[in-house]
Amino acid sequence: MWMKAIPGLMAEVASRGDEIVALCRRLIQIPTENPPGDVSTAAAAVAEVLRGWGVELTWNEPAGGRVSLVAAMGPESGRTLILNGHLDVVPAGDPGRWTRPAFSGDVSGGLIWGRGAVDMKGGVAALLGAVRAMSQVDLPGRVILTLVPDEETGGRWGSRWLLQDAGLAGDGCLIAEPSGLDVCTIGQRGALWLRLRASGTPAHGSLSPYVGKNAILSLINALRPVLALAGRRGKCPPELAQILERSKHWMASSVGEPATAALDHVTVNLGILRGGTKVNVVPEEATAEIDIRVPLGCTVAAIRAEVEALQETGVEVEILEASEPNFTLPNTRIARALAAGAKEVLGKSPSFLLQWATSDARHFRAAGIPVVQYGPFGRGIHGYDEAVLADEIVRCAQVYVATALAFLGSRELP
Amino acid sequence: MWMKAIPGLMAEVASRGDEIVALCRRLIQIPTENPPGDVSTAAAAVAEVLRGWGVELTWNEPAGGRVSLVAAMGPESGRTLILNGHLDVVPAGDPGRWTRPAFSGDVSGGLIWGRGAVDMKGGVAALLGAVRAMSQVDLPGRVILTLVPDEETGGRWGSRWLLQDAGLAGDGCLIAEPSGLDVCTIGQRGALWLRLRASGTPAHGSLSPYVGKNAILSLINALRPVLALAGRRGKCPPELAQILERSKHWMASSVGEPATAALDHVTVNLGILRGGTKVNVVPEEATAEIDIRVPLGCTVAAIRAEVEALQETGVEVEILEASEPNFTLPNTRIARALAAGAKEVLGKSPSFLLQWATSDARHFRAAGIPVVQYGPFGRGIHGYDEAVLADEIVRCAQVYVATALAFLGSRELP
Repeated sequence: MWMKAIPGLMAEVASRGDEIVALCRRLIQIPTENPPGDVSTAAAAVAEVLRGWGVELTWNEPAGGRVSLVAAMGPESGRTLILNGHLDVVPAGDPGRWTRPAFSGDVSGGLIWGRGAVDMKGGVAALLGAVRAMSQVDLPGRVILTLVPDEETGGRWGSRWLLQDAGLAGDGCLIAEPSGLDVCTIGQRGALWLRLRASGTPAHGSLSPYVGKNAILSLINALRPVLALAGRRGKCPPELAQILERSKHWMASSVGEPATAALDHVTVNLGILRGGTKVNVVPEEATAEIDIRVPLGCTVAAIRAEVEALQETGVEVEILEASEPNFTLPNTRIARALAAGAKEVLGKSPSFLLQWATSDARHFRAAGIPVVQYGPFGRGIHGYDEAVLADEIVRCAQVYVATALAFLGSRELP
Repeated sequence: MWMKAIPGLMAEVASRGDEIVALCRRLIQIPTENPPGDVSTAAAAVAEVLRGWGVELTWNEPAGGRVSLVAAMGPESGRTLILNGHLDVVPAGDPGRWTRPAFSGDVSGGLIWGRGAVDMKGGVAALLGAVRAMSQVDLPGRVILTLVPDEETGGRWGSRWLLQDAGLAGDGCLIAEPSGLDVCTIGQRGALWLRLRASGTPAHGSLSPYVGKNAILSLINALRPVLALAGRRGKCPPELAQILERSKHWMASSVGEPATAALDHVTVNLGILRGGTKVNVVPEEATAEIDIRVPLGCTVAAIRAEVEALQETGVEVEILEASEPNFTLPNTRIARALAAGAKEVLGKSPSFLLQWATSDARHFRAAGIPVVQYGPFGRGIHGYDEAVLADEIVRCAQVYVATALAFLGSRELP
């Protein structure tokens, strides 16, 4: 029965295409760089828009400027679908390296330009376009729109807070992370971020190594087994083996062949090392920050245990971030609904692939909620001259509506 | 003939003992921490004192706050003795770790307390006491008092500037560096301070090591051969072999047995390492600062050539400081004059030893001027609760007068 409503809603979304694009431009023009991570001005603008459409919402601000908007629609009796997008963006970097100003929201060549256009104010605009259409009909289940802060710095005060501290729950989740229309990402690697700290015994540098203990050298020694974790291979779950292979092809074409090894091997980045205060003083303290990514088939828990064993050598180990590799199988209802929704709108279903980055999907999956990620793409994500394809925003809004109706409806999905 | 004048001058210095101690206290109470290195307030106070005694001087300030006072006395016809002391002190560090305020100049237990008391405002006060006495008589040669800044950070705008840019010249130099009454230091190791800089190729840290090139890891690789220089043994010149052995005994009792290896082996201190900006970005740049000390019998030139060869591996090598090991033989006139002067005043000559630190002596020796170092000692040099023995200041002032008269006079010295 609900599939019958789809053509009308698709036309409704399409007729609002210019408004959706205008909304995306307006969101880009409100800087929400993280750090520092204050999204309150953007959240206020979105709240005003939603209220203008008659959509009720709650304003959640567990930490200053870390605002999550939550808008629920439809009956609580059926299934619940969470739609999720983040309002924060990575810093724009050097303004001089942008062809157009980083927060211009200029439209040119079918693209909307500016920091966060792809990641993910384009996706947020698409979610809003879908919500507007759905708010005008009686839904067969519940849709909860969640627009969050803090995704670019780990999600503590955004999605994770909603799930762990505010009781957010649902049967499936669709995140508008950029994927392009042909791809839907359903899995990601784990991450373990560490800070190692070594102590030394200060002394006059002119007596080293005969007197004193050099904290930098102790730290470099401690780093050796951590760096050696790189290249350890993950044993991919059999049901994802084909998806892994397809993901490597996709990554080879988008990032380059050498990068594909990161999908099924542990990666290690020694991102920061700092030690010592004066050239002629034996350093008393040194710290390093390391980003370890863990493929499907390895566990962060095991690697964490290995790293924490370093403490026996006197090096302090602080865990900055830890999340296990996580995925949602293609045969879950949310994945099948997305496939059906995209097919309805675009004539074909996207490829299910593994992403090499991480996202808030991990927090939902950790809470037992299956997640698919699908959103408009473009160019320059996390780089300069970021821009999102205007047309893909509108198409995604349509796919979101079709996916929601398929997910919430009673129909058996292929 | 001049030896006859000595007892009168000794009595004159002794009668001014309280004034010399008061001068030391006043100098300590004027902070001259380096960095930042501005000594102008202290220099102005000293200039006023000297002018009050009728001693003419020049005020030299080649860089802001880097003031050298130069006061010459006696005829230009005979020998010239340079008396040298530095007005700058190392930073006081954490004020909470001083029992008395760092710039109190308190007198207690026969000691004058405060940063720089030993290194070397005690020595400067002793030089001033000696100059006052000598200014009242006709000298058999020339004495040039030089009170300088910048010694604690390399001497560029102090002694080195006077010698290289202001034409300072002499036949011998006595520096009031702390030694205690029983020791006179006549040699020091060379120093080579380096900054190494490695470049990388930034990339997303989650793809490392498959994508990008980590500047920190390149730097750590480059450091290996530099660190391996430590322990290389210097072949001590035969005429200094006994002095080296005596110096080791002295160092064992004052600094500890393990430190003595530093006197005849290359030492290497990796003092600072900094690289990277974010945990999840492959670092684009990393730098290290290294303090290498070179014993007598090795050359800085050879080690510098080895280090600069690292540039072939793509690491940038910047030389921050380079000075060869340097010494003054005990049979030079300035050393014999100091021995005779101390014997006259104290009844015995000091031991000639090698120091493990460096000082402005290297600049004088590089200019061909023999140097001895002799000055009042105490406790806490470069540490907390630094304090100088008040009595040694007055005794040193007497030794300086006797040494100057012996050096400038025509008498053959033992």
